[in-house]
Amino acid sequence: MTKIAFIGLGNMGGPMAQNLVKAGHDVCGFDLVPEALDQLEQAGGSKAESVTEAAQGASVVISMLPAGKQVESLYLGDDGLFKTMGNRCLVIDCSTIEAEVARKVGQQAKEQGIDFVDAPVSGGTAGAAAGTLTFMVGGSAGTVEQARPYLEIMGQTVFHAGDTGAGQLAKICNNMLLAIVMTGTSEALKLGIDNGLDPAVLSEIMKSSSGGNWVLEKYNPVPGVMPQTPASNGYQGGFMVALMAKDLGLALNTAASSHTATPMASLADNLYKMHAIRSGSHQDFSSIIQLYDSAD
Amino acid sequence: MTKIAFIGLGNMGGPMAQNLVKAGHDVCGFDLVPEALDQLEQAGGSKAESVTEAAQGASVVISMLPAGKQVESLYLGDDGLFKTMGNRCLVIDCSTIEAEVARKVGQQAKEQGIDFVDAPVSGGTAGAAAGTLTFMVGGSAGTVEQARPYLEIMGQTVFHAGDTGAGQLAKICNNMLLAIVMTGTSEALKLGIDNGLDPAVLSEIMKSSSGGNWVLEKYNPVPGVMPQTPASNGYQGGFMVALMAKDLGLALNTAASSHTATPMASLADNLYKMHAIRSGSHQDFSSIIQLYDSAD
Amino acid sequence: MTKIAFIGLGNMGGPMAQNLVKAGHDVCGFDLVPEALDQLEQAGGSKAESVTEAAQGASVVISMLPAGKQVESLYLGDDGLFKTMGNRCLVIDCSTIEAEVARKVGQQAKEQGIDFVDAPVSGGTAGAAAGTLTFMVGGSAGTVEQARPYLEIMGQTVFHAGDTGAGQLAKICNNMLLAIVMTGTSEALKLGIDNGLDPAVLSEIMKSSSGGNWVLEKYNPVPGVMPQTPASNGYQGGFMVALMAKDLGLALNTAASSHTATPMASLADNLYKMHAIRSGSHQDFSSIIQLYDSAD
Amino acid sequence: MTKIAFIGLGNMGGPMAQNLVKAGHDVCGFDLVPEALDQLEQAGGSKAESVTEAAQGASVVISMLPAGKQVESLYLGDDGLFKTMGNRCLVIDCSTIEAEVARKVGQQAKEQGIDFVDAPVSGGTAGAAAGTLTFMVGGSAGTVEQARPYLEIMGQTVFHAGDTGAGQLAKICNNMLLAIVMTGTSEALKLGIDNGLDPAVLSEIMKSSSGGNWVLEKYNPVPGVMPQTPASNGYQGGFMVALMAKDLGLALNTAASSHTATPMASLADNLYKMHAIRSGSHQDFSSIIQLYDSAD
Repeated sequence: MTKIAFIGLGNMGGPMAQNLVKAGHDVCGFDLVPEALDQLEQAGGSKAESVTEAAQGASVVISMLPAGKQVESLYLGDDGLFKTMGNRCLVIDCSTIEAEVARKVGQQAKEQGIDFVDAPVSGGTAGAAAGTLTFMVGGSAGTVEQARPYLEIMGQTVFHAGDTGAGQLAKICNNMLLAIVMTGTSEALKLGIDNGLDPAVLSEIMKSSSGGNWVLEKYNPVPGVMPQTPASNGYQGGFMVALMAKDLGLALNTAASSHTATPMASLADNLYKMHAIRSGSHQDFSSIIQLYDSAD
Repeated sequence: MTKIAFIGLGNMGGPMAQNLVKAGHDVCGFDLVPEALDQLEQAGGSKAESVTEAAQGASVVISMLPAGKQVESLYLGDDGLFKTMGNRCLVIDCSTIEAEVARKVGQQAKEQGIDFVDAPVSGGTAGAAAGTLTFMVGGSAGTVEQARPYLEIMGQTVFHAGDTGAGQLAKICNNMLLAIVMTGTSEALKLGIDNGLDPAVLSEIMKSSSGGNWVLEKYNPVPGVMPQTPASNGYQGGFMVALMAKDLGLALNTAASSHTATPMASLADNLYKMHAIRSGSHQDFSSIIQLYDSAD
Repeated sequence: MTKIAFIGLGNMGGPMAQNLVKAGHDVCGFDLVPEALDQLEQAGGSKAESVTEAAQGASVVISMLPAGKQVESLYLGDDGLFKTMGNRCLVIDCSTIEAEVARKVGQQAKEQGIDFVDAPVSGGTAGAAAGTLTFMVGGSAGTVEQARPYLEIMGQTVFHAGDTGAGQLAKICNNMLLAIVMTGTSEALKLGIDNGLDPAVLSEIMKSSSGGNWVLEKYNPVPGVMPQTPASNGYQGGFMVALMAKDLGLALNTAASSHTATPMASLADNLYKMHAIRSGSHQDFSSIIQLYDSAD
Repeated sequence: MTKIAFIGLGNMGGPMAQNLVKAGHDVCGFDLVPEALDQLEQAGGSKAESVTEAAQGASVVISMLPAGKQVESLYLGDDGLFKTMGNRCLVIDCSTIEAEVARKVGQQAKEQGIDFVDAPVSGGTAGAAAGTLTFMVGGSAGTVEQARPYLEIMGQTVFHAGDTGAGQLAKICNNMLLAIVMTGTSEALKLGIDNGLDPAVLSEIMKSSSGGNWVLEKYNPVPGVMPQTPASNGYQGGFMVALMAKDLGLALNTAASSHTATPMASLADNLYKMHAIRSGSHQDFSSIIQLYDSAD
């Protein structure tokens, strides 16, 4: 049993923290939303009134926050945890943020003898609840091994992507590719539909051919082709357009910094923007196929 | 044993015809290249001096030609086979051509009581030799079943895509998607590389995540990541840029006719054009990743 | 006074023919629409019941038809004019068609000793009525000089673009650029509006700066900025989206043949497609700015 | 005669400051590069050893700096001018920076009773030397009138774009449009050249037609078409690719903040990136036409 502080108990962080509780750990959580704290308490954890209180005596700190500025503030801010944290602590940041911020926090951690990994996830809220998340982890091999037992409670697969920041980079690259593939798959399906093909038949063919991809396997954007997808459920649930937009923003900022040309990703980003202008950002990201249609 | 006429014995048609011979059929071939005819003869088939001679007495005609105009000329031309062919014949066109041409030939076949399917393939020259091709077939269910025994000798998988022309459409949609996925995967890998990630590690992560696709499974565009790919062999062999350009041309013409927006495919098409302007059209299509780099 | 046959008396051809009548020429017209013939007659021309009748005894034939196939049929078809036309005739085709078709017709004309120029126009129906069209002419210098007196009746400016087909190419390049500039100008104005700038002020600034272009000078896409534009008149009149789509199709087919990369034009083409899917093709082409907005 | 502090005496700021000297003002400059200070002194100005020293007793402060962070630091930093500056001072920032930073500085100025305008320029180093710059100015009408006499010494045209930050926004929109127009014009010219048109003739035609724009008027990207352009001088001088890339970055960041879709600008940005990867960033931005060619 380890004493773990868990900061950020939202749709993802909440179930992740509860899985740590179920595995027998002593989890003390903090969140700005009181209901989130209550839920952790009901699940057997404890709640703190501040970040500092949550981290008191913890040997592991896990954070799951919306953006880089919150992560930076949590660890490096004026009242940041690194001001008070003991130097044998392990810090696991599961937020999806700029690699640059992860590296900045990691560098400061290193100077203070704190072990730090960036460990963004994929798998969505369903994966968080079921403990089947995938972690893409950046940090030294030794620190990743330290973090692994906790990550394997919250998820199924743990990838060591490289040094600090590499977890963020791997996730950014993956999600950028996902946006391209979702848009491209929608386009190919729409071309088939417009020419009289049955989208279920076309999906089956492309899935087994060189066009095969995760979207066709798990997440078909055409309503009715796969019963459990957001597309078959009014594009509710799943991974919101707003979140894909955030990840594309991270990818394009990264590309701007490294002077990498990403014409396909930039176009996908603009198609998502045009879609959001019409249909809002709250639908699942597979709803991009509506952009190709007359009724948006 | 069926008497089969096989028209077009090139890199694809040659081994396909030989597989029919091996399965015990009486195959008479025609091609404009004498060496191609000799190879079929050495493999146990026979050779004809004209298309008409090859089709004499055949109950199945199979064609594998470079483009729609040759297919149209073969069947509908002044000396075309439909002028002389008996009305109980089965015609299987395996060429990749405009769906419109396939429909035109199919319509004329129907009027003459000839059974016709369009059955373009994927799987490349290796698949043709090994008999592991995938066929995407357009035609009536009855005719597709008639064609199936022959297709299953030449290939492993037979999809019934829909009515006449649907085989072509399915292939066009699939290859259009493949171009997008290859370009997008190259872009994501390049973004990772430019930011210090190991492409093999990044490929492994994305392959198992939501970015997973056939390119990452079988056809990684980064030299050295997978030993057997064209990328690891100087981009030789495989599926030439010129052929992908042809298929993208078919896709964009189809989209123009059906007024379907295909911004991602149009961009991929232009990226392939820019790549071909620099590096020629004879490399494997995974060489598109060079376009993102300083040394083209 | 010259005897002129004028084939195609639509929105453009009708007023062009009438301007020739006003200048004192003997114009005999043909069109499939009876009302068009009546209008020419009322204006002082004469009407024919067939193309052949119209061309009888004419020393100049002018055509203004919707597409290449009609032009090809008019001159080269089974009952085509080149079958009967005398060899000292001058033929001026003002249609906007494939350069390839213009070259084919021009080649046949040359073999028969007929003088031919392709002379597509810009300036719209208003320019046709006012006689202020611009002609982009392809053909030998001598033939262009022969055609000039007639062109200068119908228009204000006559450019000699090069050999046969060059008129079409120049028009295609110009209209492709126009589509890019209209889309780009819309994008820049929308970025300004979304950030609180007054579009009239921003238009004024860009018009006088390095962003200056014909769209900002004459054809602002924002309603109310310029009083006489289609934008200020509900996007009625002007140059329909359908016509811009036709010209972009010609441009992209030309680019495909010459293996020219046109990523910006291809994207503009797709944006026009997406716009047409939503809003139809009958609005003026400056309505593309609606695609950037939430209410299409 | 006014006492003016001029901060930033580079390729643009240097000649601008000298024009103020010539007009009779008492200009005290500061720059990190000693040679820049010497040149101002030789021209009749004086030099300071620090920003604070330069601003001592000045009633007008003008700044011309490379990026937003330098501007923010100059005015709002720990040793920033706003810490010491009297409240009747007029501040004119001519740097091209984020509108957001301009607004932040402007807000702070307002709270201290300092008059502030953002006044980025167009016209390049030649315009700076000749005093023919165009200023796009953001600020209250009153402050813009206060600034006008100084701006009209350094330039020819002064536009009042709107409130604080509007100068930056107008410049960003203009330069974004310029990038699209330059790329699109290059594409249209290349399509013509690839199909046998003379680029000088095609340029002349499009310049006088609906494709007409500033690039065709002043800055043709094809070598030899216009004698004085960078294109005719090995793409030396002019406006570097690196500077266009900076301005496109500002535009795309602005678009991301306002959720404006800018597909054409994003594609132009990526084409410039691909060009820079191959050919570096030091050529004039009209060199983008090389990207469409086989020899880069």
